[in-house]
Amino acid sequence: MVAVSAYGAASADAPLAPLTIERRALGDTDVAIDILYCGVCHSDLHSARNEWGFASYPIVPGHEIVGRVSAVGAKVTAHKPGDMVGVGCLVDSCRTCEPCTEHEEQFCTEQTQTYNGVEKQTGRPTNGGYSKAIVVDAHFVLRIPAGLDPARAAPLLCAGITTYSPLRHWKVGPGQKVGVVGLGGLGHMAVKLAHAMGAHVVVFTTSPGKIADAKTLGADEVVVSTERAQMKAHANSFHLIINTAAASHDLEAYTRLLRRNGTMTLVGAPEHPHTGPNTFTLIMGRRSIAGSPIGGIAETQEMLDFCAAHGVASDIEVIAMADINAAYERMLKNDVRYRFVIDMSTLS
Amino acid sequence: MVAVSAYGAASADAPLAPLTIERRALGDTDVAIDILYCGVCHSDLHSARNEWGFASYPIVPGHEIVGRVSAVGAKVTAHKPGDMVGVGCLVDSCRTCEPCTEHEEQFCTEQTQTYNGVEKQTGRPTNGGYSKAIVVDAHFVLRIPAGLDPARAAPLLCAGITTYSPLRHWKVGPGQKVGVVGLGGLGHMAVKLAHAMGAHVVVFTTSPGKIADAKTLGADEVVVSTERAQMKAHANSFHLIINTAAASHDLEAYTRLLRRNGTMTLVGAPEHPHTGPNTFTLIMGRRSIAGSPIGGIAETQEMLDFCAAHGVASDIEVIAMADINAAYERMLKNDVRYRFVIDMSTLS
Repeated sequence: MVAVSAYGAASADAPLAPLTIERRALGDTDVAIDILYCGVCHSDLHSARNEWGFASYPIVPGHEIVGRVSAVGAKVTAHKPGDMVGVGCLVDSCRTCEPCTEHEEQFCTEQTQTYNGVEKQTGRPTNGGYSKAIVVDAHFVLRIPAGLDPARAAPLLCAGITTYSPLRHWKVGPGQKVGVVGLGGLGHMAVKLAHAMGAHVVVFTTSPGKIADAKTLGADEVVVSTERAQMKAHANSFHLIINTAAASHDLEAYTRLLRRNGTMTLVGAPEHPHTGPNTFTLIMGRRSIAGSPIGGIAETQEMLDFCAAHGVASDIEVIAMADINAAYERMLKNDVRYRFVIDMSTLS
Repeated sequence: MVAVSAYGAASADAPLAPLTIERRALGDTDVAIDILYCGVCHSDLHSARNEWGFASYPIVPGHEIVGRVSAVGAKVTAHKPGDMVGVGCLVDSCRTCEPCTEHEEQFCTEQTQTYNGVEKQTGRPTNGGYSKAIVVDAHFVLRIPAGLDPARAAPLLCAGITTYSPLRHWKVGPGQKVGVVGLGGLGHMAVKLAHAMGAHVVVFTTSPGKIADAKTLGADEVVVSTERAQMKAHANSFHLIINTAAASHDLEAYTRLLRRNGTMTLVGAPEHPHTGPNTFTLIMGRRSIAGSPIGGIAETQEMLDFCAAHGVASDIEVIAMADINAAYERMLKNDVRYRFVIDMSTLS
C-alpha cells in the first residue's frame, strides 16, 4: 500500500477537502501513474453530492486522468515508465462476458468504475483522479499520442469518448447532418469531433452568447433553441442528434427535428427524467430515442489517435486543486469554456 | 362519380350508420374494386370518435380492404378485372420525394390516407373500406396471393404490415429474441410473423387467460407482465420488443428487458403519452425506443407473399356490417381473437 494525497468529499453536503488515500501495491499486470492532470466532469459533482443516490463516502472523484507512468508490473508490455498515459471512467471489467469479449467493456455488468466502485484486487473502494497517483490494470491504461497536449487531452477520457462513441456507432460522416444539444464539456467535444468526421454540425443552445464560440469550435449553424421559428426550420432534417443537456427537458421539440430513421441519443443523465416524446412523432418518421455511455477501451484508444491525427482536443481552463469547490459552483452556472482541468502539481 | 353504400359516423359521438358515398370515375391509372372484406383496426375506432383530434365528418373508416377488381383504367397493366387485391392505409403519395423514390411511401409527407384524407384527383375527402366499392390508383393496389384466404388476408393490410415492417427493419431472424407486448390485432400478427422468421418469441400479456392462445399462435414463452419475477427473469435479453399496447403505460419496465443495442419499437399510438423510460436505462445498454408505422407498398407486397409462403394469416371473427358498433364495444374490452373482419356482402 502507498499513501497518496487526494481531494474528496466526506459526505454529500461537505465541500471537497484534502485527504490521504491508499493505492494498492503494484501487481503483475498493473501500471502505476503519477497524475499530472484530471478533468472535472459533471458526474464528479453529481457523485460528490450523491445526486444519483449511490455514492459511498469518502469519495475521491475524477475519471479524466492524464499522467506519466512511474512503474509497471512484471507482465506489462504495453506501457513503460515515462510514458504519457490516460485513464478514463473504467479501471476494470470481467474480461469474459459478451460485451468484454467484443471490446465493449462499457457494457460489462461487472465493470469497476474509476471512483465510487469496488477494487477487485483489494475489495476496497476505488478512488479517482483528484489525487497524486493511481494504480490501474494495464488493459485500462490508454496511450496519449505525442501530438496531444496532456492537459487538453484529459477531458477526452470521458467527454471525448462519450461523444466519439455515438458518432461512430451511428456512422456519422460527410453528407450527414448532426445536431448537438448543449454546449458544455460534452457538447463542445461533440461539435469538434462531428466536424472532424465531416458532418454538417448544428448546435442548439439557450445562450445566444455562445453563437460565435460554437462556430469557432466547428459548428456550421447555431440555433437558439428558445426561438420557435429557428427550430422549425430544421424539422425532419437530422440524421443524429447528440443531446448533452444535463437538465430535464421535453424531448419532443428535438425529436421533430430528426429525419426519417434519425436517432437522438442522450449522453447526459439528468437528476429527474425527461418528458416526451410524442409516440406519433416516433412512429411517423421511424425515429429513435437512444442512450449511449462511454466507449470501450479499444475505441477510447482509437478516439485518442483520431484526436491527435485531426488536431482535436478539449478547450480547457486549468485550475488548482484547491479551487475545485469554486469550480463546481461555476460549473453549475455553465460558467466554464469548456472544461475545468486540475493541475495536479498544485496538490502537495 | 358512382354512388356506393357505406357505413360511417356523422360525428364523434354518433354510432356508425348506413350512408351513401361517391367514388370517383375511373382514371387511366385507377383500379375499381368490389370490396369483399374489410378488417376492423383500432385506428378506425380512434378516428370515428375523433380521439386523435383530426377527424373530419362524415367519416367512413376501414383500411384493411380485400376485394375483386371490377375494372381498370387504360394505363393499368399490373391488375385486371377478376383479380383478388388489397388496399391498406395509403391510397396515394407524391411519388417524387426521397421516401417515395426509396419505396417508403409511408413516410411521404404528402401521402393520402385511405380514409380521413383528401383525394388529390377530386379534392374531396377519402372514404375507407366500410363500403361496397373503392377506386384506387394502381400503385397502391396489392396482389393477394392465391394461397391466402381473402377474409383472413384483410388484416394483413394494416396489422400485418405494421408488425412485419419493424421485424424486417431491425433484421429479425433465427438466434434473436423478440418480445411482443399486447396480444391483440397487431400483437397476434407480430407473434406469427416473428415466429415464421425464426426468432424466439416471448409474449407479454396482462391476461393469464391468453397464455395457451399465445403459444398456439407461435410464442415460445409467455410472460404475465404484472408478475415482477417473471419480468425480471428476462432482463437484458431482447434484441427487439414490438410494443403494440394501445393504452399508456410506463416504458421503463420493458426497456430494462432489452439487451445491449436492443430496441423497443412502438407501433400503437395511445391517446395519452407513455411515461419513461429512465435515461440511465437507455444509456447503460445503448438501448433505443423507436416508433414504426406501416410499411411501403413494395414491402407490403413482400409481406403478403411471405404470409402466403409461410401459411400466415390473421385469426379473425367475421361480422356483419350492421354489427360494427357492437364490435367496437367488444374491441374496447379486448374481447376479440384477434381481429374483426366485416363481410361486405352483408351491406346492401
